[in-house]
Amino acid sequence: MSSKLVYRTLRPVLSSSVQFSGLGTGPGIRGHIISHLPTVRFFSSDTSSPASGNNQPENPIRTVDGKVISTYWGIPPAKITKPDGSAWKWNCFQPWDSYKPDVSIDVTKHHKPSNFTDKFAYWTVQTLKIPVHLFFQRKHMCHAMLLETVAAVPGMVGGMLLHLKSLRRFEHSGGWIKALLEEAENERMHLMTFIELSQPKWYERAIVFTVQGVFFNAYFLAYVISPKLAHRITGYLEEEAVNSYTEFLEDIDAGKFENLPAPAIAIDYWRLPKDATLRDVVYVIRADEAHHRDINHYASDIQFKGHELKEAPAPIGYH
Amino acid sequence: MSSKLVYRTLRPVLSSSVQFSGLGTGPGIRGHIISHLPTVRFFSSDTSSPASGNNQPENPIRTVDGKVISTYWGIPPAKITKPDGSAWKWNCFQPWDSYKPDVSIDVTKHHKPSNFTDKFAYWTVQTLKIPVHLFFQRKHMCHAMLLETVAAVPGMVGGMLLHLKSLRRFEHSGGWIKALLEEAENERMHLMTFIELSQPKWYERAIVFTVQGVFFNAYFLAYVISPKLAHRITGYLEEEAVNSYTEFLEDIDAGKFENLPAPAIAIDYWRLPKDATLRDVVYVIRADEAHHRDINHYASDIQFKGHELKEAPAPIGYH
Repeated sequence: MSSKLVYRTLRPVLSSSVQFSGLGTGPGIRGHIISHLPTVRFFSSDTSSPASGNNQPENPIRTVDGKVISTYWGIPPAKITKPDGSAWKWNCFQPWDSYKPDVSIDVTKHHKPSNFTDKFAYWTVQTLKIPVHLFFQRKHMCHAMLLETVAAVPGMVGGMLLHLKSLRRFEHSGGWIKALLEEAENERMHLMTFIELSQPKWYERAIVFTVQGVFFNAYFLAYVISPKLAHRITGYLEEEAVNSYTEFLEDIDAGKFENLPAPAIAIDYWRLPKDATLRDVVYVIRADEAHHRDINHYASDIQFKGHELKEAPAPIGYH
Repeated sequence: MSSKLVYRTLRPVLSSSVQFSGLGTGPGIRGHIISHLPTVRFFSSDTSSPASGNNQPENPIRTVDGKVISTYWGIPPAKITKPDGSAWKWNCFQPWDSYKPDVSIDVTKHHKPSNFTDKFAYWTVQTLKIPVHLFFQRKHMCHAMLLETVAAVPGMVGGMLLHLKSLRRFEHSGGWIKALLEEAENERMHLMTFIELSQPKWYERAIVFTVQGVFFNAYFLAYVISPKLAHRITGYLEEEAVNSYTEFLEDIDAGKFENLPAPAIAIDYWRLPKDATLRDVVYVIRADEAHHRDINHYASDIQFKGHELKEAPAPIGYH
C-alpha cells in the first residue's frame, strides 16, 4: 500500500463569541481561521423569554441586498476564512469535511457473484445498464450528472432505515448509520461539483424526477426485505460507476472530451491544487466510487456470513 | 452571553498506514492518538482483481472469541486511543464528534403561535402531551427513553427529504441536510445514553415499535405537504422536551430520583468530567433540546417569511 497523507483539520464547536487561538503547525494543519462576529442577540418577533424579560419585535431573518442574512435564532454564524484570507464559500461542507482521497485504491476490483442473491443483484445492474448506455453513450458529463442523482439515494435510504432500527430496538449501530449517510452526502457532492460544469436540460430533469420516485421506493423496499441484497446491488452499481469514470478519463486523455478547469467547490472539497482540471476531479470521484463499492460489498459480506452490521465497526471517515 | 469554550478536535482521514504526529498543545486539544495496525491485506473470498492478480480465498470477516474483527475490505481500521492511553470505545461517534454544549442557552424560550399553522402545530403538541403525561407521570427515565425514540425521527425525515430535493432539483442545500441529520443523530445519542441506565420493558418496546410506524409516516407526510408546519411541530415538541427535562432536574435535586453516576458514553460524548452524574447528563441533554427547538423554529420562520431554507445558511456544528 502506498503511503497516505494524514490531514488533520479542525472542527471546532462553532460559537459566535469564541476566539480562535493558534494550534501549532504540525503537518497537515491548514490553519483555517475562524473569527467571530460581534455578539448580537436577535429575537424572533414571536418569542417570549420569561427568564430574560426580552420581547423585542425584531425580524429574525434580515435581508440585505436581497440576500438573507443567516441569524441563527439568537446567534450569528461564525465567519470562516481560508489560510489565504479568502472567505470559505460553502454552506454544505466546512473545512473539516474536506479530505484528500486515497487514489491508490484498486479500481479494477470486482465481486464475483457466488450465490443466487449475488447473481440477482449483478444481473439486475447489468440489465439496467443497457438503456443507460444506449441513452448516454459517450456523453460523460450528462451521464455522470444524472447517475449521481441516483447514486446518492442508497446511502440515505440505508442510513435512515438503520437509524430507525437503532431507535426501536434500543441498540447501537456500529457506526453504519454515519458511514452510509456519509456515502450519500459524498455522492451528492459529486453532483454539486458537476452542476458547476454543466446544467441539465428540461427532459433530463424530467427523467431524474421520475427515476428518483421509482428508485427511492424500490430501494427502500429492497432494503426492508433484504439489506444484504440491497447492499450488493449498490456494490455492483458502484462498480459500474467506477467503469464509467474510467471511460470518462480515457476520453479526456484521448482529447475527445475537453479537460476543463476544476470548479472551486471541487478544489476545496477534495483539497486539489489550484490549477486542478476536470481530469483530476474525475480521478478523485472515481476513487470515491471505489470506496463506496468496497463499503457496500463489505456490508453485504457481513450479513451473508450471518452477522448483523452493528457487530462489525463501520469504516468511518474513509470515503 | 457567557463565555463559551472552544474545543478543537482532530478529524484525520483515517488510514491504516498513517503515523500520527504531534500537533502542538493549544487549548482544547485532547491529543487523541491514532496508531495504525500493521498493513495486512485481506481479500474477500469472492473478489478478483485483475490489476493485482490476487484471488485468495480468505474470509473478510474474521471472528476471534466470538467477536467480528472489522476488516474493512482490504484495510484494517485505525486504532484510536484517548490521552490517558485507554482505547476509544465507541463506533458510532469518534473523538472529533464529541463536544461541550452551550448550557447558557435560554431554556425558557417559547415561540408564541401567531398564525393558523403555528396554532395548529402548538395545539397538536399540547393534545399529544395529555396521554404521554398520563402514562409516564414522574417516571422520568422511562419518559426520556421512549420520547427520544420519537424525537430522533423528524431530523432524519427532514434531512432525507431535503437531500432528495437537492438531488432532483440540482441545487445546493444551504447546509440544512447536515444540520437536520446532526439533530437526528444527537437525539439518538441521547437514547444510547439512557439505555446505559435503564432498559425498556416488553410493553414499552411494543409501544415504541407502534409509535415509530405511525409517527414516521405522519411526519413524512407533513414534511412533504408543509415543511414549515413540520418544523414548527418539531419546535414545539422540543419545547416540551426541554420542560420535561427541567422537571427531571427538579426531581433529582429534590432527591425524588436517584442521581446515578453518568455512563461512560455520556462522559465521552459531551466531554463531561469523570465524576459526572445523571444530573450533569440531563443538564446537557436539555441544552441540546433547546438548540433543536431553536433550529426548528428558525427553519419554520425562514419559510414563513417566504424564503427557502437554502437561502439561509444552516447552523452547522452547533448542537
